[in-house]
Amino acid sequence: MRAEIITIGDELLIGQVVDTNSAWMAERLNENDIELDNITSIHDSREQIIAALDEAFNRADIVLTTGGLGPTKDDITKHVMCEYFGTRLIEDARVRAHIHDLYKERPDVLNRLTATQWLVPECAEILENRVGSAPLMVFHKNGKILASMPGVPYEMKIAMDEQILPYIRNYELKIKNYESRQIFHRTLQVNGIPESSLAILLEDYERHKPDYLHLAYLPKDGIIRLRLSSYGEASEMEMNDWFERLKTLTADYLIADTGDPLEVIAGRLLQQQGATISTAESCTGGKLAALLNKHAGSSAFYWGSVISYDNSVKEHLLGVPADMIRTRGVVSEEVVRTMAESVRSRLNTDYSIATSGIAGPSGGTESKPVGTVWIAWATPNGTTAECFHLGKLREQITDRACMKALIGLLKILNEKS
Amino acid sequence: MRAEIITIGDELLIGQVVDTNSAWMAERLNENDIELDNITSIHDSREQIIAALDEAFNRADIVLTTGGLGPTKDDITKHVMCEYFGTRLIEDARVRAHIHDLYKERPDVLNRLTATQWLVPECAEILENRVGSAPLMVFHKNGKILASMPGVPYEMKIAMDEQILPYIRNYELKIKNYESRQIFHRTLQVNGIPESSLAILLEDYERHKPDYLHLAYLPKDGIIRLRLSSYGEASEMEMNDWFERLKTLTADYLIADTGDPLEVIAGRLLQQQGATISTAESCTGGKLAALLNKHAGSSAFYWGSVISYDNSVKEHLLGVPADMIRTRGVVSEEVVRTMAESVRSRLNTDYSIATSGIAGPSGGTESKPVGTVWIAWATPNGTTAECFHLGKLREQITDRACMKALIGLLKILNEKS
Repeated sequence: MRAEIITIGDELLIGQVVDTNSAWMAERLNENDIELDNITSIHDSREQIIAALDEAFNRADIVLTTGGLGPTKDDITKHVMCEYFGTRLIEDARVRAHIHDLYKERPDVLNRLTATQWLVPECAEILENRVGSAPLMVFHKNGKILASMPGVPYEMKIAMDEQILPYIRNYELKIKNYESRQIFHRTLQVNGIPESSLAILLEDYERHKPDYLHLAYLPKDGIIRLRLSSYGEASEMEMNDWFERLKTLTADYLIADTGDPLEVIAGRLLQQQGATISTAESCTGGKLAALLNKHAGSSAFYWGSVISYDNSVKEHLLGVPADMIRTRGVVSEEVVRTMAESVRSRLNTDYSIATSGIAGPSGGTESKPVGTVWIAWATPNGTTAECFHLGKLREQITDRACMKALIGLLKILNEKS
Repeated sequence: MRAEIITIGDELLIGQVVDTNSAWMAERLNENDIELDNITSIHDSREQIIAALDEAFNRADIVLTTGGLGPTKDDITKHVMCEYFGTRLIEDARVRAHIHDLYKERPDVLNRLTATQWLVPECAEILENRVGSAPLMVFHKNGKILASMPGVPYEMKIAMDEQILPYIRNYELKIKNYESRQIFHRTLQVNGIPESSLAILLEDYERHKPDYLHLAYLPKDGIIRLRLSSYGEASEMEMNDWFERLKTLTADYLIADTGDPLEVIAGRLLQQQGATISTAESCTGGKLAALLNKHAGSSAFYWGSVISYDNSVKEHLLGVPADMIRTRGVVSEEVVRTMAESVRSRLNTDYSIATSGIAGPSGGTESKPVGTVWIAWATPNGTTAECFHLGKLREQITDRACMKALIGLLKILNEKS
């Protein structure tokens, strides 16, 4: 099965909103053995929607659209779908009851415009949108499927998981001649080697591996993910065998043998060890803390943080001597070690990480240019610290500092386990 | 001038990477009076790249591509461009010198694969990629332009700002019959009214405004942005006049009369007042701190934070009595007020914000379900607190809590100013 995604909304084309929906849907499709060939973003425009539907139906078996289903005038997707499939809007009693239930405690929402939400295209199958008022619509055309979902990310996610994906899987089973292919992806993550050197290191491997195994290099924030994919022709055992060879070849740079975010891997290791962690952050300003507690279950290992953006906070809450800041500088090994040891002891955790750096754009000097970041890791067995130079742009520097902090943590936790 | 973006990379179609480039480029194009009609994401596939180029050239004057320019085997964009434009690769001495200079302190990068980066298509104009090794390529076809950039976001951004946009503007001036149109956007942000009720409130306005003014509703994290756009036919004065009417009509819900992120507006107000701020965060876990110090210059007003994920941190670093946590619950008005007042006094700031809530998926009770969040604002004139119910999903809850915290802060700062 081949799929395409069409995201509809003026806001995407003027950059007011980043399309995070597509990547999320892409991941789910991939897990469900549906190949995604194309993602297209277009305006809330009748002509563009019709042209995009035509193109997508020409190429794909499944067309997924998001957006343009709100009750306001700028949302035209439902009307254009009616035109495209030659149908008309009719009232749907089930949707009407659902919307009344949804807003039973907010009668102000049950107005004239909301009432247009229970008008649905006559020829569409309507699936339940548990958390919103826009009906999920499924259309059929020449044995192909179009599913139309709202663009609000959390509504779309629930719609995909609870309604659209089960619907597609079910529909798939009915299609004659459809052969299910096994898709495998395995990903590892390396650090400390340039992409080109890595590619040279793996030249022999790439030459000898079967053609149906595909190797992709995905660099981000100083880490390179190596993803090995197999589409249908390799057995899981064969795939694993080639993945193990890849691990052996990259062993010197390997930081993880899954594609999971580093904070997830670190959280897993901390939980396995029954250990806790805290952070003391200057330049990363809470980003590292937010990463460590991003995922459900993090309260088992993440205790808390002191964000000491201003020097007074470093002094008063973390006991960094004013003298040390004056003589060594706030971005220094001494200060970052003191921050790490102090937060570890004050928050009573097993591990801690501290960051202090110059995120820019101002504040750089000859000896400590913008991008200089000191990171320290305090553990039950002592403290280590390292200095990094992480680029020139504020966001890049703080993102990379978080990655370096997590890589260092993973090394420590892996030695321990 | 009409533009399209093509982003190239397998990683986009399996959801391993979110395409943030397109939104950023879209914003820049918009600011530069270039209308973006279409964003397409495709695989590193010869056939798909050629088909996408054909389609884009059929519709647009300017085609921008990102991705597929790395030195490794999976990156094929440069080769496909050569085929598409019927040209061949030749060595570029300037690019070669640049790459040698770029890696002068990292000779390990100057290997065989990196050497392929100074091979460029003979018919292309090569612009300088100041921060990376992939050359920026500009091709011409029937009076139209294709510009090919790397997919690494910070390389793309510098390429766009320093090279591609100036190139396009310069080229534009040379094109006969090109009429520059004035595009205006003005955005305001409202809170506390459902999208449909807002639309009803604005029905008369929408009926009476000229057709060439377009009004868009952009809901996100509980805030609705209203964007009024004019494409060429309205004068700036006329536009401003209609925008002022919009402000008057929405005055009861208005939180900002620009589209800037709320933390930017709050930072500006704090700086104008010479005031400082700190946060004490439980459920938001550092996200609010990271927002407040996300932008350059934030060290002028943002002092620091205590992230007290675990109750022991609330007790020891914020002085929340264990008794209060036991009797009132950790998600309570008393606790969140104490957190706010304590962090304000301990970090010696003018303002502070505290959050405590149940981000889930577990931890909810009958009386305090997942999504319950208490927020307190401590100011020189006392402390206020409010309870919110922010949905069911972890990320949604913490994102919305940050928005509620910033909305409350803006109200306080606006009263002050």
